[in-house]
Amino acid sequence: MAKIAPISGFPEWLPAGRIVEQRMIDMLRHTFELHGFSGIETRAVEPVERLLSKGETSKEIYLLRRLQDEAGADSELGLHFDLTVPLSRYVLENAGHLDFPFRRYQIQKVWRGERPQDGRFREFLQADVDVVGQDTLAFHHEIELPLVMVDALSKLPIPRVRILASNRKVAQGFYEAIGLEDVEETLRILDKLDKVGPQAITEMLIDSVGANEQQARLALELAGIRADDASVADRVLALGYRSDLLDEGLGELVALVEGANDLIPGAVMADLKIARGLDYYTGSVYESVLEGHEDLGSVCSGGRYDSLVSDGKKSYPGVGLSIGVSRILARVIGQDLLTPSRKVPTVVLVAVNDEGERRHAEKTAQALRKRGIAAEVSPNSAKFGKQIRYADRRGIPYVWFSTDDGEQVKDIRSGDQVGADAGVWTPPTVDLSPELRGSHE
Amino acid sequence: MAKIAPISGFPEWLPAGRIVEQRMIDMLRHTFELHGFSGIETRAVEPVERLLSKGETSKEIYLLRRLQDEAGADSELGLHFDLTVPLSRYVLENAGHLDFPFRRYQIQKVWRGERPQDGRFREFLQADVDVVGQDTLAFHHEIELPLVMVDALSKLPIPRVRILASNRKVAQGFYEAIGLEDVEETLRILDKLDKVGPQAITEMLIDSVGANEQQARLALELAGIRADDASVADRVLALGYRSDLLDEGLGELVALVEGANDLIPGAVMADLKIARGLDYYTGSVYESVLEGHEDLGSVCSGGRYDSLVSDGKKSYPGVGLSIGVSRILARVIGQDLLTPSRKVPTVVLVAVNDEGERRHAEKTAQALRKRGIAAEVSPNSAKFGKQIRYADRRGIPYVWFSTDDGEQVKDIRSGDQVGADAGVWTPPTVDLSPELRGSHE
Repeated sequence: MAKIAPISGFPEWLPAGRIVEQRMIDMLRHTFELHGFSGIETRAVEPVERLLSKGETSKEIYLLRRLQDEAGADSELGLHFDLTVPLSRYVLENAGHLDFPFRRYQIQKVWRGERPQDGRFREFLQADVDVVGQDTLAFHHEIELPLVMVDALSKLPIPRVRILASNRKVAQGFYEAIGLEDVEETLRILDKLDKVGPQAITEMLIDSVGANEQQARLALELAGIRADDASVADRVLALGYRSDLLDEGLGELVALVEGANDLIPGAVMADLKIARGLDYYTGSVYESVLEGHEDLGSVCSGGRYDSLVSDGKKSYPGVGLSIGVSRILARVIGQDLLTPSRKVPTVVLVAVNDEGERRHAEKTAQALRKRGIAAEVSPNSAKFGKQIRYADRRGIPYVWFSTDDGEQVKDIRSGDQVGADAGVWTPPTVDLSPELRGSHE
Repeated sequence: MAKIAPISGFPEWLPAGRIVEQRMIDMLRHTFELHGFSGIETRAVEPVERLLSKGETSKEIYLLRRLQDEAGADSELGLHFDLTVPLSRYVLENAGHLDFPFRRYQIQKVWRGERPQDGRFREFLQADVDVVGQDTLAFHHEIELPLVMVDALSKLPIPRVRILASNRKVAQGFYEAIGLEDVEETLRILDKLDKVGPQAITEMLIDSVGANEQQARLALELAGIRADDASVADRVLALGYRSDLLDEGLGELVALVEGANDLIPGAVMADLKIARGLDYYTGSVYESVLEGHEDLGSVCSGGRYDSLVSDGKKSYPGVGLSIGVSRILARVIGQDLLTPSRKVPTVVLVAVNDEGERRHAEKTAQALRKRGIAAEVSPNSAKFGKQIRYADRRGIPYVWFSTDDGEQVKDIRSGDQVGADAGVWTPPTVDLSPELRGSHE
């Protein structure tokens, strides 16, 4: 039998950590629904050739096969590695039953067969929002979607998240204007700027896309531009190059930062080093950082795509972002930045005097639950001290006793004990469910 | 590229169906927490040899391999096919950090590489509750756990579910008393009674466990006993056989039906044809039927196990049940037994007069969301009739207008339109989120 041990890259939480995770999922869901997004859940598997159509992830895919497979019948299925490929397939498959623009959120596990390393998992939770249009999708959704994420993330008890944005048209327009023709490869190289530094980027540009020194310098100058208002366009134009595409992209980028920051001040910063390696983005692209945890990398990313999804007759342009929930959680749980006020949902432990009175205790618990108060009955009829320790170890705040003087409830934190009726007694709201406590607040 | 089509055995819902599923999950979670169970989530994969230690499911397992696997390093991982094997591994792995008895619930997808057929899926959602003790676990949990499920299921807007229970000690004690020695095989055969009928069972008992006609007749007579009170024991004893194990089992079975039905009348029926094929059960076993949908088979099953989990030093006996959420959902969604009052979470569509006023509309939506009212802004500034149709198609009940006479909100169901302030206006509570409507109610 295999040794019992964690499997690298497949994080799991103890019950206290799961309370934090579940609470974060609930809060994200709540915000997404406040913004009118419908939740969907897609199957974990997709046909491998569909997964492979997004080339660069090919080596990260987990394939499935049945243990006693007769003819390899399922070998063409793989686990999804993101929620965008499943969304595109779901939209095409169900287009006749969906209303467009289709606003959907999806909070689900994804799997990647990567070598696990700090902040990278093989199984992890993503929370995505996308708006998908049929044939057309108005630009204003490129302002709307990052704001949904800023709203969602700002309600979580985590450090502040700021969205960094660029626009694929700005990059492409600029690269073409300075004479770099392999835009995709140039983007892929610039995407590594934070990791490898400007010197290495210069060399890669010269080696891979045939840039000269000046073109490499200009590409790096563009990548160095950062502003949260219209000045971002002035600084790009000051580099001395123009094109229709560049102008269009700058118009959108300025509309994004101005529009977004008017609705939520400080929400979005234009940052032209944001490249997003994925070649299907066609407009705005987004990354983000968790303040004080920049080493984690982007915790929320996405962009506008025009041609990811098409059935040959209609196209389905979209814009969306994805939160790396597990990446954030691993940090806040791992560093004890967030802990629940108790490890269990139970508010009241109903003590049992002796086993003959268990039925009575069960009925007390039943009466409490009927009024929304989580209650469990002591698993044994040991001495009261032991039953109180049972509650104390789990953080259960109240113990209920049946005494000769009638029913009583003790707040084991303060020691206060009062007469009580299970059909009436109500704890303070703050005690009804575990509260999250953040060390950074 | 693969044709876009559903994959047999991997059910997915449209957004309206997902509302039903999500609501059911939320209601289950709520009840489980009211009973003091902690939620956990385990990774989707387990080492294959751990999955295989529960022999009879071996051919149903999905194995994983990475697309570009160098050395088959991950080939020993498979997707979990239930939530019991992961629970046992989780308990062993984390025993030092858990408090016993450990009360946990888990609502998660599981995968089985079965040939899909009616009511059987390859990917489906299960909702499990278990109590796991360290070395010992009191019998009263065998009364408690089915009641948690009855409570949880009775709160769902689905037909009534009744738990059918037997006790492994009754079956084993009786078979041994009548001289049938291969108890496990006898149980596996009796488990097929509903499918194949008594004649086939008799033949199988004679062929496989060497029963004579009388032994086969007695085994079938035992399986025909059904009662919701202590008379179940009288009827078994009336067959004329006794043993210590049989007496112990009958004592537990009577305590279960009497105790359970005292707390929730009609909750549990003793039904001695319940066998549960799985050989790790050692005490109470449970199945259940959805009234009016008996053809679905058991929608909630489980039992007591003493030796499923052990690390050689300590053992971890438990009792638990599992709800086949997808099986229930496929029926209630598939037959339109439950539909949401609308397809989207949105309460208010904020209309846009022209694109220049979009920012104003966004601020209105923001003010509504701040007070917990789900709002989205019209994706276009088409004629109002078209914007109202956008809301109508999705079932959004209110459209918000900015007019020369000030802000107004229209209930598009009644046509009523009133002046309103986004910082104050509140819809009736019933409109705040989609309601489920059941056709069976």
